[in-house]
Amino acid sequence: MADVYPNESTTDGSAAPSITTGAIRGSHKIHHSTESGLRVPARRIELSNGEHLDVYDTSGPYTDDSVGIDVHQGIHPLRRGWTDGREHRTQLESARQGVVTREMEYIAAREDLSPEFVRSEVAAGRAVIPVNRCHPETEPMIIGKNFLVKVNANIGNSAVTSSVEEEVEKMVWASRWGADTIMDLSTGSRIHETREAILRNSPVPIGTVPIYQAMEKVDSDPAKLTWEIYRDTVIEQCEQGVDYMTVHAGVLLRYVPMTAQRVTGIVSRGGSIMAAWCLAHHRESFLYERFSELCGILRSYDVTFSLGDGLRPGSIADANDRAQFAELETLGELTHIAREHGVQVMIEGPGHVPMHKIEENVRREEELCGEAPFYTLGPLATDIAPAYDHITSAIGAAEIGRAGTAMLCYVTPKEHLGLPNRDDVKTGVIAYKIAAHSADLAKGHPRAQERDDELSKARFEFRWNDQFNLSLDPDTARAYHDETLPAEPAKTAHFCSMCGPKFCSMKITQDVRDYAAKHGLDSVEAIDAGMREKSEEFAASGGEVYLPMAE
Amino acid sequence: MADVYPNESTTDGSAAPSITTGAIRGSHKIHHSTESGLRVPARRIELSNGEHLDVYDTSGPYTDDSVGIDVHQGIHPLRRGWTDGREHRTQLESARQGVVTREMEYIAAREDLSPEFVRSEVAAGRAVIPVNRCHPETEPMIIGKNFLVKVNANIGNSAVTSSVEEEVEKMVWASRWGADTIMDLSTGSRIHETREAILRNSPVPIGTVPIYQAMEKVDSDPAKLTWEIYRDTVIEQCEQGVDYMTVHAGVLLRYVPMTAQRVTGIVSRGGSIMAAWCLAHHRESFLYERFSELCGILRSYDVTFSLGDGLRPGSIADANDRAQFAELETLGELTHIAREHGVQVMIEGPGHVPMHKIEENVRREEELCGEAPFYTLGPLATDIAPAYDHITSAIGAAEIGRAGTAMLCYVTPKEHLGLPNRDDVKTGVIAYKIAAHSADLAKGHPRAQERDDELSKARFEFRWNDQFNLSLDPDTARAYHDETLPAEPAKTAHFCSMCGPKFCSMKITQDVRDYAAKHGLDSVEAIDAGMREKSEEFAASGGEVYLPMAE
Repeated sequence: MADVYPNESTTDGSAAPSITTGAIRGSHKIHHSTESGLRVPARRIELSNGEHLDVYDTSGPYTDDSVGIDVHQGIHPLRRGWTDGREHRTQLESARQGVVTREMEYIAAREDLSPEFVRSEVAAGRAVIPVNRCHPETEPMIIGKNFLVKVNANIGNSAVTSSVEEEVEKMVWASRWGADTIMDLSTGSRIHETREAILRNSPVPIGTVPIYQAMEKVDSDPAKLTWEIYRDTVIEQCEQGVDYMTVHAGVLLRYVPMTAQRVTGIVSRGGSIMAAWCLAHHRESFLYERFSELCGILRSYDVTFSLGDGLRPGSIADANDRAQFAELETLGELTHIAREHGVQVMIEGPGHVPMHKIEENVRREEELCGEAPFYTLGPLATDIAPAYDHITSAIGAAEIGRAGTAMLCYVTPKEHLGLPNRDDVKTGVIAYKIAAHSADLAKGHPRAQERDDELSKARFEFRWNDQFNLSLDPDTARAYHDETLPAEPAKTAHFCSMCGPKFCSMKITQDVRDYAAKHGLDSVEAIDAGMREKSEEFAASGGEVYLPMAE
Repeated sequence: MADVYPNESTTDGSAAPSITTGAIRGSHKIHHSTESGLRVPARRIELSNGEHLDVYDTSGPYTDDSVGIDVHQGIHPLRRGWTDGREHRTQLESARQGVVTREMEYIAAREDLSPEFVRSEVAAGRAVIPVNRCHPETEPMIIGKNFLVKVNANIGNSAVTSSVEEEVEKMVWASRWGADTIMDLSTGSRIHETREAILRNSPVPIGTVPIYQAMEKVDSDPAKLTWEIYRDTVIEQCEQGVDYMTVHAGVLLRYVPMTAQRVTGIVSRGGSIMAAWCLAHHRESFLYERFSELCGILRSYDVTFSLGDGLRPGSIADANDRAQFAELETLGELTHIAREHGVQVMIEGPGHVPMHKIEENVRREEELCGEAPFYTLGPLATDIAPAYDHITSAIGAAEIGRAGTAMLCYVTPKEHLGLPNRDDVKTGVIAYKIAAHSADLAKGHPRAQERDDELSKARFEFRWNDQFNLSLDPDTARAYHDETLPAEPAKTAHFCSMCGPKFCSMKITQDVRDYAAKHGLDSVEAIDAGMREKSEEFAASGGEVYLPMAE
């Protein structure tokens, strides 16, 4: 999704957006303090009945009205000093040694779980905390199937017209709406500066695909890639603070022919680069051969591997095929090697998969890769709806999230067609927050349903402003409502536009409740008993009424 | 969704849209002939490689360039005369007697199945053919779990500014994009004329909720409803040609208290009307008491029951609760009574249901209602995304469709917020075509994947126009692409805007294929064997390369 073409446009038509700041409508930033005094952010939605709901917050200082923003300065390096005095260990190594790091404590508060539980999941490799020591700006977060399902958004630079503000704004915009991590897929000559600007301003972990930058150094000829060029690129990015890196080390020479008769061959850019390299040199790739060395580098920064699925299916026809699962086996081998090195690992997954083949992906991944967090791109549940692939893939994403995928990489409406603009990015993030939350509900995450319940109560009580503010996108919910009933008093009116004032099902339900209240029937059982009595009286006086159809 | 407020707007801002006619871009109407000479429509998508794909077509004569349209005249009454000389039987009765009706023959051709299979599914009650004998304009279609999953779109009149053209256009617009049936939820004084205009111009079955019109006759006071008023309304609508009717006969007096402590009480308008009636009169409703009489009326027109779920959950919290399943049991009883009368039946379902509770709905419905076709409203998989409920519900719809639901009632982005405009209707229909098709793929419908495969091949071969034309919405797919690469030559360019000309994964895959071809390796096995040989040579010369990480 690298923005090779420059016609990015903004909602209001301006060319270079400034940074979006200020709280999301109807809410404000708060901080909870942990036992050891860490300040953990949340977003507080105030309700008109005097109550409030605190929700998980990915937006960083940009939505904190008490913090000034200067993108040339960068945001506050929250974690600076956290690792001082701590041995040079990764989160995985610390967890294995029984140490609860500050990151784990922070995450425990964010997810409302115990620090010990966080530690144990990291120790088991079932969860990762992508926090490069050189990215102190990160607000620690966790990716694992026993935590809230996370969402990643991809961004990329515009080759021609890019400014620091513009690039940073893409990250700010996506995380404002709920992106838990951002992948920077920028290309071109200013790739280093762009990434630097994003990292110094990002409160969420940043992922990259280092092979893209390495390709820049060899004039985009895969055959010219070498271990040395790649290694230096990885070190450069580690030093900058990249938190996780996609590495397509599972594309083996012998797997390449398995793709030749696919409907859509190899669709992963990284995968096809490595396949081309293997074919050109007729040997296994330097990513595979030098994997141990790579582990050593990532370990020293605590950068997390995101083992790429270079042979993922690009169409329904190719889902769950031999090439895909062969590569997954190799990713399993590599997972165990990385863990031996103390490096955190997650596994990337498809792509395009019909619904009935989705669960098998998760089961195999868990089995082969020791339950390393699965991180999937969608998948799209059908190929036939370009322009709506945020929807086709939200269907697959909800399904695979429910089955145990820990992070979902978003897809925008422009997938397969062009470059997403600002509105597309927001639409993609919201669609994926829906998928992730649907999965959280299905998995029975203890607090997930709170927000549904609060919103539904507000809806039922005609507290329109509360309904908007509790929604994933208060601005759009309000705007849609106002198209039909724009007057402010309507926000508290006891009817909605669908049925109008005379004809409202919710009003009739209220009458039912009032009836129960009037007769002193204040519990389900009491109402039931009270009404059954009346019904029985009635039945006794004309019992046939109850069996009118038994001819 | 009755349009009480008149601010419906059109894409181009005009007040009263004329009827949309003309083929969908990149395709044209064709007809296949059945053995007995029935002409069955399909939409032929012509491809640039000389091939074509015929797809199921719901759009009627409006996309047939050889047919003139005059909404005051109505469309050709295709089925006029089909029932002449046939005993006054319903499709269910005919099927049971072993008779393959013309409707079944027509449907068999549409769905590419045998007429005998269609007959047997109807005979078993597992499928319904909603065709009122007074609606000869209907192109016969079938609803059942062993057929393509169908989509319904709701429309409703604008109380103030409505013209015949405007009302007909809503139906034409929704069926153009794939709605298999339309429910007319109009209210107000011109309800009869509006319905007449829709029926005389509709090639798809029309459903209604007669209680809405009955309410108009009693000044919207549920307590004043009577069997006589309701019965006369039903007969009026049967005479006009309504193909299926929602009847909330399962709302029993004793179930009402079960809703009093729900988060969102009763959210079905029909359900709350009947609950209010039961409370006011302290007896079972006339719908339940007079159900047999109602069966007699529907039988004589072959109108299909759509037994309404008046107590469906309106929130995640209320899903699968006692009230919902109690009503479903009653719907099961009523299903068997209707079938004894020879009347076709489908069952309406929720609503709002988290993913893990979806399948239970289908299993219970099938068990209690003798596998009568299930017809669900979404369900929404979460409550927290008003303005995106076409997505929250497409997730639930795909899941419930996969589990066996036969028809999905669409939800638009304006659900819970206001009245859908033209764009919302299209978005809702497309989102539901995605859900239905995803379910068809998951259920292994024999021909469902053809379209995915054709589109993916076109995508991989950079046949951009074919990719657009094969998609559910060619206009939007093309427009999104053209935002980035508007020049016409780009439509056949061997790269796409995501990666640009130098850096394209699909091009690299082509190189892989070329490599295989150059070495005469033309099957997966041959390529595999040929390359394995080379790999083995390589391994023999430096085997450690293959185990670089085994420290």
